[in-house]
Amino acid sequence: MNAPAGNRTRVCTVAGYYSTTRPLVLVASFTELSVLVKRTRKPSRRGSISRHQIQSQLRKCVVLERESKREMAIPILKAAISDSHEFFNSLSHTTRLLSIPKKRRLIVSASASASASAPSEINPLRSEVSFCVGTHLIPHPNKVDRGGEDAFFVSSYNGGVVAVADGVSGWAEQNVDPSLFPKELMANASDLVGDEEVNYDPQILLKKAHTATSSKGSATVIVAMLEKNGVLKIASVGDCGLRVIRKGKKYPGFFACSTCKLLLDVSSSNDTTWELIELTGKLIFSTLPQEHYFDCPYQLSSEVITQTYLDATVTSVKLLEGDTIVMGSDGLFDNVFDHEIVSTITQYSDAAEAAKALADLASNHSMDSNFESPYSLEARTRGFDVPFWKKVLGVKLTGGKPDDITVVVGQVVSS
Amino acid sequence: MNAPAGNRTRVCTVAGYYSTTRPLVLVASFTELSVLVKRTRKPSRRGSISRHQIQSQLRKCVVLERESKREMAIPILKAAISDSHEFFNSLSHTTRLLSIPKKRRLIVSASASASASAPSEINPLRSEVSFCVGTHLIPHPNKVDRGGEDAFFVSSYNGGVVAVADGVSGWAEQNVDPSLFPKELMANASDLVGDEEVNYDPQILLKKAHTATSSKGSATVIVAMLEKNGVLKIASVGDCGLRVIRKGKKYPGFFACSTCKLLLDVSSSNDTTWELIELTGKLIFSTLPQEHYFDCPYQLSSEVITQTYLDATVTSVKLLEGDTIVMGSDGLFDNVFDHEIVSTITQYSDAAEAAKALADLASNHSMDSNFESPYSLEARTRGFDVPFWKKVLGVKLTGGKPDDITVVVGQVVSS
Repeated sequence: MNAPAGNRTRVCTVAGYYSTTRPLVLVASFTELSVLVKRTRKPSRRGSISRHQIQSQLRKCVVLERESKREMAIPILKAAISDSHEFFNSLSHTTRLLSIPKKRRLIVSASASASASAPSEINPLRSEVSFCVGTHLIPHPNKVDRGGEDAFFVSSYNGGVVAVADGVSGWAEQNVDPSLFPKELMANASDLVGDEEVNYDPQILLKKAHTATSSKGSATVIVAMLEKNGVLKIASVGDCGLRVIRKGKKYPGFFACSTCKLLLDVSSSNDTTWELIELTGKLIFSTLPQEHYFDCPYQLSSEVITQTYLDATVTSVKLLEGDTIVMGSDGLFDNVFDHEIVSTITQYSDAAEAAKALADLASNHSMDSNFESPYSLEARTRGFDVPFWKKVLGVKLTGGKPDDITVVVGQVVSS
Repeated sequence: MNAPAGNRTRVCTVAGYYSTTRPLVLVASFTELSVLVKRTRKPSRRGSISRHQIQSQLRKCVVLERESKREMAIPILKAAISDSHEFFNSLSHTTRLLSIPKKRRLIVSASASASASAPSEINPLRSEVSFCVGTHLIPHPNKVDRGGEDAFFVSSYNGGVVAVADGVSGWAEQNVDPSLFPKELMANASDLVGDEEVNYDPQILLKKAHTATSSKGSATVIVAMLEKNGVLKIASVGDCGLRVIRKGKKYPGFFACSTCKLLLDVSSSNDTTWELIELTGKLIFSTLPQEHYFDCPYQLSSEVITQTYLDATVTSVKLLEGDTIVMGSDGLFDNVFDHEIVSTITQYSDAAEAAKALADLASNHSMDSNFESPYSLEARTRGFDVPFWKKVLGVKLTGGKPDDITVVVGQVVSS
């Protein structure tokens, strides 16, 4: 049905978009070559912390959790939390699980290591870092023949540069191909990435790429540049987005229930009917969309009166080895919740596979009229809904949003 | 009931916490003095853009909005959007409002200026910037006598430094005053803010302040340092938070309906029964909480095995003159939604009044057992809820979370 144009990016300084004639159209020169380094998990550098210390620390965390910092204004949640105190207390003993339903899904299997490691110790930033990138693009089902209106580029310049542009499709009403502007914008950005004036600044890259673009049209756009010290600089105009997922802390011998997220010491339990998980990754950073009003995003345009690079939201986040970034067009973020992005990233060690899985998930949700998508939730919040008489019948606004879907996954590896 | 300890911060290098004996306890020296500059709205620098151009641009935006980029997977929303096309089309004419309920609240009155200004032109970053800060602290209702367990500091060093620490109350079970650790941490941070080794780096400030703290206990903490070029550097461990609100674009003569958010040209309408608003501010940046699991945040501690400065999420965001930051303990963010923060900030030009309004709102929500708070929503998402038999009766988990509430509001002004 959809013809995915995904590819594990094996070359740098490459801009891509979907084409029916060529699986990945390259519009920039192959001036550099990079080798994709598969992220390997480093052993913990700190094996001297005793298991007793970890248990002690976790018990304290749980004890602290009980106090008033956690209480609610009403007895209802107090009761709910109170019900789980037995569960909290079980941390200090061999776990015997009384009040929690069984049959949890095993997401990540146990580590046999007996040492504890903080993230900073698991992922020491001792060396320079760079991105290992995978990409996947699925065009809007009605635009497969034209390849959709998203474009992206990936470069290995410095620690790595990734960018996505999403063409505004309304230009078709004026007989303008909406894909031309984002394609040219990405090609120009790809050419300019090493420009002296750009000087590793994604906002200046947007400025120069926009100035160099002569096609008619407009696009939302996001650019992220990784410095080798781990600082990721981001400039975004509109509703493309970027998320950063960091691995959870590891407490070997302790696991979290996939539903209740409580930490359990199950190392000496023989109750194999329990399936438990390690703590999964955490979302540590997210861009926010810019829009004039619901569904009318900021955009760079061929027209004079519109947004410019000065309207970009400019942020940065310090990344650690082992972190993963997910960048995409709104086709991803309107159809996939952040917790789904985190859980999907957790399941794939290969960046290209992760990008494909996320794009497929977004595509499936976008076609599902019953799915309560981020987009339909937001639409209801903003006052869009089914007519009153349908509400009375229990009908509510649901469904995903068909759109071009671009996903770029970048894993931070030592270079 | 609660005894607020709010104050418009008129001095720099000052650390504060609530005390029943003194309204604001100063624990650092008054080595510097700063003048709070009230933000004044600068006139637009660009008066040459014709009204026709603005109308043309907005019409295009609306036209673009209709296309498939905006369609849903199901006919329901398509119908809903289709219903509003008349409304969109009305942009190109004198507005005659047919399908929208009347009686909108006037939030911001009209500007008489006929020129259009992009944010970058409204808020040009031509000069050095600094913070104009207002603070407000409301202790947990059960901890008023001890002054609560939050602490904060504000300094005018460089462009301004703001920080909040939230003591983990569970230490009281071990006969440790939970407020000692955050108070000493903030006092040390305040002393060290100009340290050569810190060198404007909030993560290093956390490291050195933590190392210097000898009290027993633990705390979540956030520090933000503004450079005079507008870059705000942030380091956070745990669930204190920071939001950045940027003023919306101004299109004089155009307004947004407070409910539907659609742009309207009402300049030639005599229908005074309509009360319309300008586009309000936008949330452009938000930190994300770090936690081991629900309600168990990362924290700096007097104990060895816990989080360190290395576990901080380190981010930055480029601010413009006119931007406002809201920093707070989880007592704010667990009880007040982001859209409420944005709308509250929009209503106050004075930073201290805005901080007080936000703290009061959080306090009121925290005591309201019927309020569907961010905390109760999150609790339900994480599997905490009322018992099954109550669910059958239509009861669900609601209510705010009583807690210490600290709010720091910083307005970016030219210095």
